[in-house]
Amino acid sequence: MKTNKAIILDSRPTDKVSPANFRLVEAPLPTPGPGEVLVRHHYLSLDPYMRGRLSDAKSYAKPQELGATMGGGTVGEVVASNNPRFKPGNFVVGMGGWQLYGLSDGRDLNVVDAATIPLQAYLGTVGMPGVTAWYGLNKIIAAKKGETVVVSAATGAVGSVVGQLAKIAGARTVGVAGGADKCAYAVKELGYDVCVDHKSPRFAEEMKAALPNGLDGLFENVGGEPFAQCLRRLNDFARIAICGLIASYEGPPTALPDMRLFLVRRIKIEGFIVSDHLPLWPQALGELAGHVAAGRLRWRETVREGLESAPQALVDLLHGGNFGKMLVKLI
Amino acid sequence: MKTNKAIILDSRPTDKVSPANFRLVEAPLPTPGPGEVLVRHHYLSLDPYMRGRLSDAKSYAKPQELGATMGGGTVGEVVASNNPRFKPGNFVVGMGGWQLYGLSDGRDLNVVDAATIPLQAYLGTVGMPGVTAWYGLNKIIAAKKGETVVVSAATGAVGSVVGQLAKIAGARTVGVAGGADKCAYAVKELGYDVCVDHKSPRFAEEMKAALPNGLDGLFENVGGEPFAQCLRRLNDFARIAICGLIASYEGPPTALPDMRLFLVRRIKIEGFIVSDHLPLWPQALGELAGHVAAGRLRWRETVREGLESAPQALVDLLHGGNFGKMLVKLI
Repeated sequence: MKTNKAIILDSRPTDKVSPANFRLVEAPLPTPGPGEVLVRHHYLSLDPYMRGRLSDAKSYAKPQELGATMGGGTVGEVVASNNPRFKPGNFVVGMGGWQLYGLSDGRDLNVVDAATIPLQAYLGTVGMPGVTAWYGLNKIIAAKKGETVVVSAATGAVGSVVGQLAKIAGARTVGVAGGADKCAYAVKELGYDVCVDHKSPRFAEEMKAALPNGLDGLFENVGGEPFAQCLRRLNDFARIAICGLIASYEGPPTALPDMRLFLVRRIKIEGFIVSDHLPLWPQALGELAGHVAAGRLRWRETVREGLESAPQALVDLLHGGNFGKMLVKLI
Repeated sequence: MKTNKAIILDSRPTDKVSPANFRLVEAPLPTPGPGEVLVRHHYLSLDPYMRGRLSDAKSYAKPQELGATMGGGTVGEVVASNNPRFKPGNFVVGMGGWQLYGLSDGRDLNVVDAATIPLQAYLGTVGMPGVTAWYGLNKIIAAKKGETVVVSAATGAVGSVVGQLAKIAGARTVGVAGGADKCAYAVKELGYDVCVDHKSPRFAEEMKAALPNGLDGLFENVGGEPFAQCLRRLNDFARIAICGLIASYEGPPTALPDMRLFLVRRIKIEGFIVSDHLPLWPQALGELAGHVAAGRLRWRETVREGLESAPQALVDLLHGGNFGKMLVKLI
């Protein structure tokens, strides 16, 4: 009899999350009931929002239940199905969680075309992170040709798409990333006009130099010091999309020290969660797939091997240990 | 020969503005040149934005020039005109400044109907403050029926219009004002569902009690502690229009201590200046005049007598010493 393996949340982190908060469990492989689908996962997606779910404080996502399999996006292949929408051999994207096999009633699953686009891209550039980039850039920042857009976590799963879409829209793009290798990749491969290393001891001066005409749009994934530097360079009518604040998830809060800036500069700032905007996903995914097919969007992946690597991979993601989309390969 | 009297800015305030920063000067009454109009001012408007112009720090308004006549909105009567758009006897609203007579090329002047609406209302409910209320409420907060809208400085020239327009739109309206008399007026005359006195020692508890279902829209004129209390009561997708931060103009800055709120609650916050939106003024003024004509908008005025009273009136306005629109009567 085949077994399934899963990782459950064993305890809530009191400060920083560690692999000790998780536990690997085994269970018999389930048999799909009426309407159900069994999926063998190929890749598991690790995303910054998961940190919020580990706490039971009020947040936009429901807290992860203790003792239950960790939630998370997955791509895989249907191996058994009692649901007419799916048949064995279909590749699907869904919310299968941190486990080798996922059982679903099919509501979270969508069949994807793994022939023209690599399967795992449905967890990244043509998945939730890509739609996140698309929404914040198009619906909040709405960058016009010639404007300057700053993207923090510029080479991450979301940021890499923001930078490239902003460039396609005719903006000047300034990335912020951690380390010289990420910054070099941002400029050479992702087409940023410039990328500033937030680990540099001269970060503030380098941000000033990178923004001689200020900034009109900020896609914020990080918070902390990069955000503070951007606040000093806002142009009149700048728009800030707050997508994530990863520097504050296990660090000090990111503050706005003086609201008067909003009046002096007429700033708009808006926080968003992509799952609030499901009706726009088909349009966004269609455009993203079109760009990928045309070779206009590039990305990088950090792939960890095996389900057991997921907890440490999450820890690493939260501290910039990924380069591009963080994935766990399960097969 | 007739003389004009004017108040000039004599020195910039280093901390709080005082009447000693201003000086009354006299000059011969000018004769209009080609295309020019001479207006005898009936009322001078005092508005919180004037505080910002007294400093030479970067702000949305150009700094007031030292030694020059203080700028400001005025209503009055044309007494001489070489401009075909105006004839003696016309009542006009304009930016005549702190003086008894204003000379203009006509570009800042508009003829108004003083027969159906009191002349000084063109400096308040059917003037810049009214359009400010209209813009922030309709274009940023966009209150839906049944939502809760909080208005700080609830009985002021702007706030009183916001509260009444929000009520007309079907919202539940919660005012914040300084003192029991203002709060009583807010509820009895302006139709707020409740008004909380920010001078109350139990202010935080009273705000909590006034917002049992949180708030969906915040029209912020004040900043400081009322703003901090509102941040604690935001509903998901709340919209905050930042119109003014009068508590911070001569006090400590108003901060947003933790941006994470923007993600958890998906908040939008936007600062605005009504003069950025001139194309919308005719629509806004038309709607406001219609509401006034139909008796749907009420307001109060604090009227000081004589040009010499203007400096102290501005100081009082900045510290809540007005009740409704602050005006100086010049005739």
